[in-house]
Amino acid sequence: MRHVISVKVGNRAGVLARVAGLFSARGYNIDSLAVSATEHEDTSIMTIVVKGDDKIIEQVKKQLNKLIDIIKITDHSILPSIQRELAIIKTNALSSKKSEIIHLSELFNAEMIDITNKTITLALMGDPEKLDKFIELLTPYTIRELIRTGRVSILKG
Amino acid sequence: MRHVISVKVGNRAGVLARVAGLFSARGYNIDSLAVSATEHEDTSIMTIVVKGDDKIIEQVKKQLNKLIDIIKITDHSILPSIQRELAIIKTNALSSKKSEIIHLSELFNAEMIDITNKTITLALMGDPEKLDKFIELLTPYTIRELIRTGRVSILKG
Repeated sequence: MRHVISVKVGNRAGVLARVAGLFSARGYNIDSLAVSATEHEDTSIMTIVVKGDDKIIEQVKKQLNKLIDIIKITDHSILPSIQRELAIIKTNALSSKKSEIIHLSELFNAEMIDITNKTITLALMGDPEKLDKFIELLTPYTIRELIRTGRVSILKG
Repeated sequence: MRHVISVKVGNRAGVLARVAGLFSARGYNIDSLAVSATEHEDTSIMTIVVKGDDKIIEQVKKQLNKLIDIIKITDHSILPSIQRELAIIKTNALSSKKSEIIHLSELFNAEMIDITNKTITLALMGDPEKLDKFIELLTPYTIRELIRTGRVSILKG
């Protein structure tokens, strides 16, 4: 099962390395990770997406709880949450295909952030499934570069 | 100076821990980090934002280059690039203030992802400075939760 784990941490050098080390020690490859500021200057939130057996993830959460600088761990995959992600996609755009790509980006409410003779670069925010769909529809035009932020998640209510 | 370093890595358990360890060994706290999929299934891109002396960052880049599974390192802070970030903001929203907050979110083209009697939750994509401005304008309403993805960056052209 895919788990979305939100970890609030104190802003100290080394905490990211310790958390990442805990996952890699068990041979887990993290699907995505987003680490950034919160409403408090001295804390960060790490949103970790990882696939794994529920029991083992439970153990990882217990280990995380023992680390210094870990303030709170929440498993958003088992709670009502809203998830968003951002993707930047640079696709080939031959003259004959440009209008198709622009039409598609309008349908998805994507932002066109760069355009050259041969390429169009788009940015899109949405739930991860919307991003997957958009990327799938752009694939026939040949995607030259794709960068995603990894998802962030907030509990409902 | 703030550096935005894009690191393309092979998808192996442990590579994230090694990269994070390299920064923490020098006492560097990473401002933000986004790790996720690319156009190739077997690679990820880590976008690292870190403040530091140019000479020391140069050394870190050299050390990174020596790590196994590192495919390419690009310093986007010294090249023409476009940067985007995503923020989710849950703010207090008393009945008397709801319309002000909704108006603000329309001005910024934010997405309203959740609403309760007392709160509004918004998602916004943009360059990091736009996000900073939006957060600043929401601060008087009292921000209950803030999560950012950390920036991702693509070279122009």
